[in-house]
Amino acid sequence: MKPLIKQTLEEVDTKSGRYFALFIQSLILISLLTFSLETVPDINQQYGAVLRVTEVILVGIFTLEYLLRIYVADKKLAFVFSFFGLIDLLAILPFYLATGLDLRSVRVFRLLRLFRVLKLLRYSDAINRFHRALVIAKEELVLFSCVTLIMVYLAAVGIYYFENAAQPENFKSIFHSLWWSVATLTTVGYGEVYPITIGGKVFTFFVLMLGLGVVAVPTGLVSSALAQVRAEDKQ
Amino acid sequence: MKPLIKQTLEEVDTKSGRYFALFIQSLILISLLTFSLETVPDINQQYGAVLRVTEVILVGIFTLEYLLRIYVADKKLAFVFSFFGLIDLLAILPFYLATGLDLRSVRVFRLLRLFRVLKLLRYSDAINRFHRALVIAKEELVLFSCVTLIMVYLAAVGIYYFENAAQPENFKSIFHSLWWSVATLTTVGYGEVYPITIGGKVFTFFVLMLGLGVVAVPTGLVSSALAQVRAEDKQ
Amino acid sequence: MKPLIKQTLEEVDTKSGRYFALFIQSLILISLLTFSLETVPDINQQYGAVLRVTEVILVGIFTLEYLLRIYVADKKLAFVFSFFGLIDLLAILPFYLATGLDLRSVRVFRLLRLFRVLKLLRYSDAINRFHRALVIAKEELVLFSCVTLIMVYLAAVGIYYFENAAQPENFKSIFHSLWWSVATLTTVGYGEVYPITIGGKVFTFFVLMLGLGVVAVPTGLVSSALAQVRAEDKQ
Amino acid sequence: MKPLIKQTLEEVDTKSGRYFALFIQSLILISLLTFSLETVPDINQQYGAVLRVTEVILVGIFTLEYLLRIYVADKKLAFVFSFFGLIDLLAILPFYLATGLDLRSVRVFRLLRLFRVLKLLRYSDAINRFHRALVIAKEELVLFSCVTLIMVYLAAVGIYYFENAAQPENFKSIFHSLWWSVATLTTVGYGEVYPITIGGKVFTFFVLMLGLGVVAVPTGLVSSALAQVRAEDKQ
Repeated sequence: MKPLIKQTLEEVDTKSGRYFALFIQSLILISLLTFSLETVPDINQQYGAVLRVTEVILVGIFTLEYLLRIYVADKKLAFVFSFFGLIDLLAILPFYLATGLDLRSVRVFRLLRLFRVLKLLRYSDAINRFHRALVIAKEELVLFSCVTLIMVYLAAVGIYYFENAAQPENFKSIFHSLWWSVATLTTVGYGEVYPITIGGKVFTFFVLMLGLGVVAVPTGLVSSALAQVRAEDKQ
Repeated sequence: MKPLIKQTLEEVDTKSGRYFALFIQSLILISLLTFSLETVPDINQQYGAVLRVTEVILVGIFTLEYLLRIYVADKKLAFVFSFFGLIDLLAILPFYLATGLDLRSVRVFRLLRLFRVLKLLRYSDAINRFHRALVIAKEELVLFSCVTLIMVYLAAVGIYYFENAAQPENFKSIFHSLWWSVATLTTVGYGEVYPITIGGKVFTFFVLMLGLGVVAVPTGLVSSALAQVRAEDKQ
Repeated sequence: MKPLIKQTLEEVDTKSGRYFALFIQSLILISLLTFSLETVPDINQQYGAVLRVTEVILVGIFTLEYLLRIYVADKKLAFVFSFFGLIDLLAILPFYLATGLDLRSVRVFRLLRLFRVLKLLRYSDAINRFHRALVIAKEELVLFSCVTLIMVYLAAVGIYYFENAAQPENFKSIFHSLWWSVATLTTVGYGEVYPITIGGKVFTFFVLMLGLGVVAVPTGLVSSALAQVRAEDKQ
Repeated sequence: MKPLIKQTLEEVDTKSGRYFALFIQSLILISLLTFSLETVPDINQQYGAVLRVTEVILVGIFTLEYLLRIYVADKKLAFVFSFFGLIDLLAILPFYLATGLDLRSVRVFRLLRLFRVLKLLRYSDAINRFHRALVIAKEELVLFSCVTLIMVYLAAVGIYYFENAAQPENFKSIFHSLWWSVATLTTVGYGEVYPITIGGKVFTFFVLMLGLGVVAVPTGLVSSALAQVRAEDKQ
């Protein structure tokens, strides 16, 4: 019995293992859907009971899966404290904790349920290659992240000096200006804060010319590292 | 007679084939133009009759082309159920179906006419190379699409918790927040929904720093795979 | 005398040629500045006379340069009808045409003065490499440009069907929807038109997921082709 | 004694050197934080005294570090006039200058403190590789920067002619149009200025189709050059 369960739970290459993995992944998607539906006021009022029953069933199955995984693990403690062991626990713990606590704190704990999404990634194969690409480009990624942060900060300081007098509400402090800086350098540009002085506009021009290159480089690094990993695998 | 028609219809390398292909492509462009012009209220009122006559002529030519293609095909049934065989049929079918039905349903069927656009791609050569690039980068593209979807969802959940209390209308539920999430992570940033709480803004910053890299990587993958295919062809 | 002028005008590698090229480029920049300053209402009223005198002097120098270039050219007619020969002529012609015509038509002709900017590129070296990169990636660039155009059109048709009923003013026809389509797929997102129906928002999500990859690929193609040209030059 | 200080200050590979570098970097981050906090009106009123005391302590430590660096330098004058020597001086000078001047001018000098951020980069290793990548792609980067500037200018001229009559306030002159041009070609799209005429919209479409490729190419150049440097290092 135990070897069969072990095979179903841990070996995705086998037929039973593949079906079980698909089953669990479907349940995770359903649990995310119910979680989202509960936040819609109208649906929560009308179908609240249905959603809560689904919740109990889902947590029940996830608990059973978690206990079985411990049961079949060769090193039980190692599994419990492994990355996915902890995620599996975090996915069900809030439910049991919430029953003994008041409603407010439940809300915060619920966010942990989102870690379930990571279980979706458990069985993927291409992740390995992505991981190696990150290792290859690690130093450059760290450097460009630092430079990006510095750039975002410098842009905020600069625009604060140019726009603070003209728009004291939108650019009240460097921290307020940081919001503009983030929205601009990522080119999102919501458009609720933007420079109106000539100095601020010229400054924005230079910031964008310099900044866009820096902010977008990490993407190029990841994709060229991935191409390299692919080339290595081919040889 | 038949071999000549066959050559004109199927062999784009010959002189007559090239002219015929150009002729059909021009008609497709004209049919897209009339389709678009019909949606302009003023033009539809004044020139509605002209547009409808053009429509009849165009569908007539497309029907003739479709019948001739069946006539010259070696395996007639195989052509009818081939990708472009079905598209050719879908491009003319709505017109014949619409005459027997009331006007409302016509509108829905008309959308199928857009498949005509795909005929434009029929004769292209570079598609083959693009197809091979997609095969090379397939697994990474699937992985990054999944991670993008997860990221969009997690961003929506996060912003919902930060902004729901402050902007109950814009961030009513996780589904409403998804719209913000899509507009932000693609850097479109329409600017009709944006975070106003400090928590929401800091969260947006981290989401963008992490998310932009992920969302933009697939593009880099496609172009580096295309460069690889080009290099392979050269050797 | 003539060989000296020829050397100064045509050979940028020599000392006198380099200084002359720099001198002409400075004048082009000044002429662009005066052209821009004339459009500022306040400045045009106060300093209009100064700007017009500068204009006369600049056109005088450019005319002299053009005549000298014809004078030193080995094949005079070939120069006059060469790309840069025509640009040099177009840069000065509007001024002489305008004096004999009324003021309205001058405005249109003035736009031709902008071709002067292209003279800036005359002496650049890296252009050659960029040209070769374009040749390498030509077919892919044409394909992706076509697919981009089709995508922009399909997105406009789709959003028209979803949003026309809810926002008859913003999405009046497919042509009006094209504007939304362009602003969205390029991620500019001005934010004056955006979908408000659930169907329109879900459609936008799919359009962006598919479209962003397509629209941004050409950039990656150009830069990888440039890297290839650089590698070829190195060997 | 002196060799020990020299080792701590200049050799980051040793244990004491690494701890000292980390200590100084933390102080720089703290000094940036106090600088930012001073701009928040509420915090400046309540905790102004605390921030100013922290300021005095930080400048004291930075001054001590600067003097020690001169003391241990082999060529003292060379250090003082080196890039980081000047930055270290600029980081403390405004404080001493400000005490003898009135408060207004202090504000301007304070901006120089931002150069401290660059000290963060002093000890980084990956910068060297980034520097080599810039050298490799230098000519292309200069070319594309020039073309980008020309494009931004041409787009501004074009939109000025299309929109000036319809929106005399937003597109008052070519200089006003430049702001639209920058926000559009970088795809930030704040949305406070956008074309409303049909001509202006069609023009924007063509500008974006051509311009996006050009503006985004430098990023691709940097990342492919970085990949090349990495490949060279590996061999």
